[in-house]
Amino acid sequence: MKQLWTGRLEGGLDAKADALNASLPIDRRLFAQDVHGSIAWAHALQRAGVLTEKETRQIGTGLEQIGNELAAETFAFAPTDEDIHTAVERRLGELIGEPAGKLHTGRSRNDQVATDFRMWLMEAEDRLHADIRKVQQALVSRAERDSGAVMPGYTHTQRAQPVLLSHWWLAHFWALERDAARLREARDRTAICPLGSGALAGTAFPVDREALALDLGFSTAAPNSIDAVSDRDFAAEFLFLAALTGVHCSRLADSLILFSTAEFGFLELDDAYATGSSLMPQKKNPDLLELARAKSGRLIGLLTGMLAVLKGLPSAYDKDLQEDKLPVFEAADILATVLPVMGGMLDTLVINSERMNAALDDGMLATDLADYLVGKGIPFRQAHAAAGKAVRRSIELGVRLSRMDLKEFSAIHPGFEKDLADAFRLESALSRRSAKGGTAPEAVKVQLEQAKRILRS
Amino acid sequence: MKQLWTGRLEGGLDAKADALNASLPIDRRLFAQDVHGSIAWAHALQRAGVLTEKETRQIGTGLEQIGNELAAETFAFAPTDEDIHTAVERRLGELIGEPAGKLHTGRSRNDQVATDFRMWLMEAEDRLHADIRKVQQALVSRAERDSGAVMPGYTHTQRAQPVLLSHWWLAHFWALERDAARLREARDRTAICPLGSGALAGTAFPVDREALALDLGFSTAAPNSIDAVSDRDFAAEFLFLAALTGVHCSRLADSLILFSTAEFGFLELDDAYATGSSLMPQKKNPDLLELARAKSGRLIGLLTGMLAVLKGLPSAYDKDLQEDKLPVFEAADILATVLPVMGGMLDTLVINSERMNAALDDGMLATDLADYLVGKGIPFRQAHAAAGKAVRRSIELGVRLSRMDLKEFSAIHPGFEKDLADAFRLESALSRRSAKGGTAPEAVKVQLEQAKRILRS
Amino acid sequence: MKQLWTGRLEGGLDAKADALNASLPIDRRLFAQDVHGSIAWAHALQRAGVLTEKETRQIGTGLEQIGNELAAETFAFAPTDEDIHTAVERRLGELIGEPAGKLHTGRSRNDQVATDFRMWLMEAEDRLHADIRKVQQALVSRAERDSGAVMPGYTHTQRAQPVLLSHWWLAHFWALERDAARLREARDRTAICPLGSGALAGTAFPVDREALALDLGFSTAAPNSIDAVSDRDFAAEFLFLAALTGVHCSRLADSLILFSTAEFGFLELDDAYATGSSLMPQKKNPDLLELARAKSGRLIGLLTGMLAVLKGLPSAYDKDLQEDKLPVFEAADILATVLPVMGGMLDTLVINSERMNAALDDGMLATDLADYLVGKGIPFRQAHAAAGKAVRRSIELGVRLSRMDLKEFSAIHPGFEKDLADAFRLESALSRRSAKGGTAPEAVKVQLEQAKRILRS
Amino acid sequence: MKQLWTGRLEGGLDAKADALNASLPIDRRLFAQDVHGSIAWAHALQRAGVLTEKETRQIGTGLEQIGNELAAETFAFAPTDEDIHTAVERRLGELIGEPAGKLHTGRSRNDQVATDFRMWLMEAEDRLHADIRKVQQALVSRAERDSGAVMPGYTHTQRAQPVLLSHWWLAHFWALERDAARLREARDRTAICPLGSGALAGTAFPVDREALALDLGFSTAAPNSIDAVSDRDFAAEFLFLAALTGVHCSRLADSLILFSTAEFGFLELDDAYATGSSLMPQKKNPDLLELARAKSGRLIGLLTGMLAVLKGLPSAYDKDLQEDKLPVFEAADILATVLPVMGGMLDTLVINSERMNAALDDGMLATDLADYLVGKGIPFRQAHAAAGKAVRRSIELGVRLSRMDLKEFSAIHPGFEKDLADAFRLESALSRRSAKGGTAPEAVKVQLEQAKRILRS
Repeated sequence: MKQLWTGRLEGGLDAKADALNASLPIDRRLFAQDVHGSIAWAHALQRAGVLTEKETRQIGTGLEQIGNELAAETFAFAPTDEDIHTAVERRLGELIGEPAGKLHTGRSRNDQVATDFRMWLMEAEDRLHADIRKVQQALVSRAERDSGAVMPGYTHTQRAQPVLLSHWWLAHFWALERDAARLREARDRTAICPLGSGALAGTAFPVDREALALDLGFSTAAPNSIDAVSDRDFAAEFLFLAALTGVHCSRLADSLILFSTAEFGFLELDDAYATGSSLMPQKKNPDLLELARAKSGRLIGLLTGMLAVLKGLPSAYDKDLQEDKLPVFEAADILATVLPVMGGMLDTLVINSERMNAALDDGMLATDLADYLVGKGIPFRQAHAAAGKAVRRSIELGVRLSRMDLKEFSAIHPGFEKDLADAFRLESALSRRSAKGGTAPEAVKVQLEQAKRILRS
Repeated sequence: MKQLWTGRLEGGLDAKADALNASLPIDRRLFAQDVHGSIAWAHALQRAGVLTEKETRQIGTGLEQIGNELAAETFAFAPTDEDIHTAVERRLGELIGEPAGKLHTGRSRNDQVATDFRMWLMEAEDRLHADIRKVQQALVSRAERDSGAVMPGYTHTQRAQPVLLSHWWLAHFWALERDAARLREARDRTAICPLGSGALAGTAFPVDREALALDLGFSTAAPNSIDAVSDRDFAAEFLFLAALTGVHCSRLADSLILFSTAEFGFLELDDAYATGSSLMPQKKNPDLLELARAKSGRLIGLLTGMLAVLKGLPSAYDKDLQEDKLPVFEAADILATVLPVMGGMLDTLVINSERMNAALDDGMLATDLADYLVGKGIPFRQAHAAAGKAVRRSIELGVRLSRMDLKEFSAIHPGFEKDLADAFRLESALSRRSAKGGTAPEAVKVQLEQAKRILRS
Repeated sequence: MKQLWTGRLEGGLDAKADALNASLPIDRRLFAQDVHGSIAWAHALQRAGVLTEKETRQIGTGLEQIGNELAAETFAFAPTDEDIHTAVERRLGELIGEPAGKLHTGRSRNDQVATDFRMWLMEAEDRLHADIRKVQQALVSRAERDSGAVMPGYTHTQRAQPVLLSHWWLAHFWALERDAARLREARDRTAICPLGSGALAGTAFPVDREALALDLGFSTAAPNSIDAVSDRDFAAEFLFLAALTGVHCSRLADSLILFSTAEFGFLELDDAYATGSSLMPQKKNPDLLELARAKSGRLIGLLTGMLAVLKGLPSAYDKDLQEDKLPVFEAADILATVLPVMGGMLDTLVINSERMNAALDDGMLATDLADYLVGKGIPFRQAHAAAGKAVRRSIELGVRLSRMDLKEFSAIHPGFEKDLADAFRLESALSRRSAKGGTAPEAVKVQLEQAKRILRS
Repeated sequence: MKQLWTGRLEGGLDAKADALNASLPIDRRLFAQDVHGSIAWAHALQRAGVLTEKETRQIGTGLEQIGNELAAETFAFAPTDEDIHTAVERRLGELIGEPAGKLHTGRSRNDQVATDFRMWLMEAEDRLHADIRKVQQALVSRAERDSGAVMPGYTHTQRAQPVLLSHWWLAHFWALERDAARLREARDRTAICPLGSGALAGTAFPVDREALALDLGFSTAAPNSIDAVSDRDFAAEFLFLAALTGVHCSRLADSLILFSTAEFGFLELDDAYATGSSLMPQKKNPDLLELARAKSGRLIGLLTGMLAVLKGLPSAYDKDLQEDKLPVFEAADILATVLPVMGGMLDTLVINSERMNAALDDGMLATDLADYLVGKGIPFRQAHAAAGKAVRRSIELGVRLSRMDLKEFSAIHPGFEKDLADAFRLESALSRRSAKGGTAPEAVKVQLEQAKRILRS
């Protein structure tokens, strides 16, 4: 902030030093919050007897004009504007003269910037919550639309057991539900107002900080002025939950990339969410899914960088804390793009349930084969070994497990009897898993209702 | 798990592959949870009609003996024990014979290991919460003991404004209070029971999963079996809050290292929390503080590693998830050591308030000088510039600001008058900052009461 | 180091502080280097006139015995042994009495530990280089064995163009070749000897540091004593190259996981490198590949943690640096397991070239279709568009591209003529890519020779 | 790339998907390389008989004009320009018509973008090397200017032993020298040309890739086309060395922050490299040093993010790789600002050698006290203990160690005799450390010459 310390330091900053120091290109994004916060501060000063009603009105009118100029992008930044806070105050002086010089009374940029940033983040957190909800809604809609479709469930990317496609979609719903819950809690911790903490020691004017906090949409005023100016937990916490939300998207994306290969062929992306190749015209590439996956790596880096910035800083305020906004803005922007893309992609992709059915090979019922023996009182470990042997035998014979002769089965374990055929019915393999959270149609129906209740709440 | 797939695969694992695959050295730490979880599973199977009362009793008795053997470290692991789960089941077979083979009915290692790990983590989270509370208590005690001591408050590691030492201690209280709150919320998300989810599709036996969850100390059963076996959010979230708690410790540690230098000299560590040098016998080194600071870097790495492991994994269960326990165990161990050391150090360090007082130079009252002019109706920006000029003038003259002749002040701004002397009183600089969260003695007293209420709750 | 500062500090360390401070559980791994380094130091002291020949011999004999005891695991650690250095010196005193007290003359643990650690790392780097070479050899062997096999090359995990499987194997050879090159350069930077730098200011005895460095297998002595004790670049650099090597393994692993799915079916892992499922007996899981992939995430975390530890440390030696060994040891151990497993897996997996062939659909020749038109003078962009339209038309008609009627082609672009059939020959698609680095058999042969020359060198 | 796949896909991309997919805002920075690379490619196509001389000339002239338009910022981007490559080709078509459509023959964006990016990075690496050299020069200049100044050397941020300030400056020279060496090696690995690798399988036209590589300033052509398009090691390696260079800056910065506190007072920053406070006019804040420190945290995050992006990607080209440029650009920009600021700050800061001298307390000669006894044949451990006791005794008596009565010394160890006074001379404490790398003036002189030779080379 060039002009602010003219009382003390001679000469200007070196040009590169100025470039390193300047935060305006980044923090101009906080303009609405800065204007809003300053208006509230002026009122707080008036209530504290520092400003007259007239001065407060002049300041308010001036700031509102500035807010309009900034919103309309007609605001002229000056080369001396180091950050958005100084730009606003400089312009206020041009507009209303002397009273502008009274606005910063009892305030410091340390509490001002932390306040603006928290206000911005609260809004960003609300937007992110809405974006997460929309992807959850898309998953619920798919679960409803794709009701009845059966797919191979995978573990280790190997076919494991049949599951309802609806059940698979809902698995991703619950991961996002945790993200949404974390976000709400993080927002509560963001809603603590630092304003009135001064540089670090508190304000020397009798400002009612609780009233001020409520004015600005916070839930309360920060309890300790030193902590208030040095705390960036809210930034780190946002970056963590953004990274984990990104990781959830990356896992869903990775599966969809897999499912949209020619080899799996379980689904086709809509043209609005796929791209082509400049050299290979036949291709339909899942670029957006790959980018969603990649962005989760970027988000991990943003979190790591923020924590590394904070680590080992002496209290209270250190300039290092200025490195808080870049990662938070970028993380918010990433998810504000990735989540709607995920949602749109889910809404529009086309399922190929025939390919899914074709992938349900008999081996996936081996567990049910074992359970069949368990049902006859055979201990599970014995049953498990017998089922395994049956699978091996069918591979040796080159015959589908369900078509293998009963004699082969009986030779492996006498428990295999005529009623064995029932164990190879897909429907029963699904419907038997009816305990809470299982893939049985009735259990999935209950689960779906629970998910819809959450979305309505 | 060597013997488990003997039905299917021929030959054993390559030795290096076995070393990479084996998790016993790590997951043996889950033994108590594994035993406990298996006993509850047996009862759930009994209630579902799969086990007889007798079998359930045999299994329970056998498992209890195994738990005792493991606790007493008399349990003999076999070379074929791939992990704690197979070791326990193998031993159960030795002890009770056939009924042991029925225990794994309707269960998979996928849901079993996630259940054990969550149970372990819930306990670890409770311990960590207690450890955080103790450091908070130490900070509150210091705030009470050091009442009255005044220190220079720093920004940019430069002297800024005087603050109460009690206020400074409490700043760190609130950072830890956020850690404690995050921990409680994370624990709620840990307390979701995966057991009964099978490999991924749910269990095929009519187990009452809610009753089972409550039996094991969970609050509810996981709503989706696929999500239940692939979710490791609880591990990532724990690692994040551990890393941020570590960062808070590192910031406090860094300040204490600074304050215990010869140059600052604000405090001396107790011999029980300091070490010497092998080459320089006069030194008293803050090794523990340095290690606390360094461990926060390590914790950041543990978090990063976990997120990088999870990123891009296809659902549902992938073996990659096995890499969850090492970082969580290490993070828990780090904080279980660092936090008590921080607490003990705080309890025993000795404050040198004379050195603190000596560091309170007049320049730190420059803000109050500006506020003095504000009190006379001068706009803050003018007042600020005038105060800055006064500081420069005093430096030019080589005289303390409070001793500079009134004429010098008046020459800078006519608002400086005889009553100026009051602006240089430390007590008033403190007591004027009495708004909530400020450093005034009365405000700090209120803050301290709030902190104590939290500790009592 | 409990007893070393008994001259100065009263009382012992708090128990938890001792646990945090103690590095013996970790640095005992440096025992051979510590013994070796101390013997060399004694000789350096003798050459500097500090020790007599007899004392030097006594020390040497004592240290050799200690080395043997440690190697044989008969060495009895004492509760007062804080680290391996104090343990060795304590034991030396027991064995030879007073001369032991002279060994630490002119030395500090600061230079001693950095020297030991670098010696250990040089050996670990040699081992890692050999392990990388073995995987490269396995890739070259596969490239030779699988000569002639053609697979779909993928971009975006979508089938793109046919490539030789040998070419695909060699792609991974070059990634590892970069790792090997980085490793050799990192080793050169490890081979700088800190010994003789004292605590930070240099040694006060006339030690010939260059001779000492060469004695210990270093290439030279560190040029600045302050830098020598505070430099941990070698650890960070090792962790970076380990992480990148891990990432290369993870990419190969991910592809192999994909190729071993039922859906791709391009290869089958040997039973010695695959595991089974406790619940699903038919499965053959690529656990080792998944663990190799996961370990790369862990390695990223180890690197991040180390950099975060180093960031912002004031020079020269800070205890934070003690956190260097844990990540380096773990990273070395991970790769010492993962690389041989990757190699063994490559050696033993079985290719299913029929499945590969079946996956070579006509669409993969679309580029060649465009190039066919280019050969007739059509600008590439026109040719590209025409080829794309042809693909779409074939999809609309539900006919294989190579079987689509010539009329359909001509309707799209008049350049499509009777000789079109040649564009659909796989052999020509491959052989035309004969520029350096291309997939043509002759180009791959040249590439293979280059790779073999590297392995022989 | 909207128009490129119009042959195949119907409809456009969803708007958010387009925003996620578009890389133009980032990769436009590669324009000069893209133009340059395309001109060389046209020549290569001509040599391969694909383009006529006239077409090549037309393309060359058109591309040069485009390069000029882009440099002059008069280039009009179209909404359909997805990235810089498509923008350039689109404009070329406008300028020269049909021949423009021939430029992309035998090339893919996969090899094109990797080529452009490597060309950009080679230049950035050269610039970074020059910037590092300038900071090294600044350190050497300080070492010369501050010759004779003695400061306390610190370990654990505690005063340890006196060192020459020149020695301390040079310690940082060597850290940067390692950075420079790593950078040169990384540049060698960047200088491998992917162009002519096509999408992944190589180019189908007889291009002389080695000649093309040399044309573009590379040292050779990539040996494997699949590896060539999927390799991003050069980006990760650059980010690592940038992060480590950043960490080195952060350590120097942290020390300078410490040394410029009122409490240390060893130096004062020039006004061109310091900032003021809006609330506290007396302060001179080391904001730039704090930002340099913070940026190292950011750099760690950029590296972590890149590695997390790469981890687990299947070969060959995946769109995830597009996330390579953002971190590399940002890292290069950070160091292009931080390094000159560090250099300028070093050039202009003012040393306060009186404050340094005042901080050289007697206790810092305790090692020399021990060495004094060693000189009399006392084993170091005994000597060390005796020196420690002497320090404790002087503290108990409240007397400076050098003024403590000889009787007190003798009572501790009879080896303390009249000649003890010499052990307390600063000059001898320095000059005795004359082994290579030590702080003795003569050793530092040798070291300085070595550093200057490096800068001249």
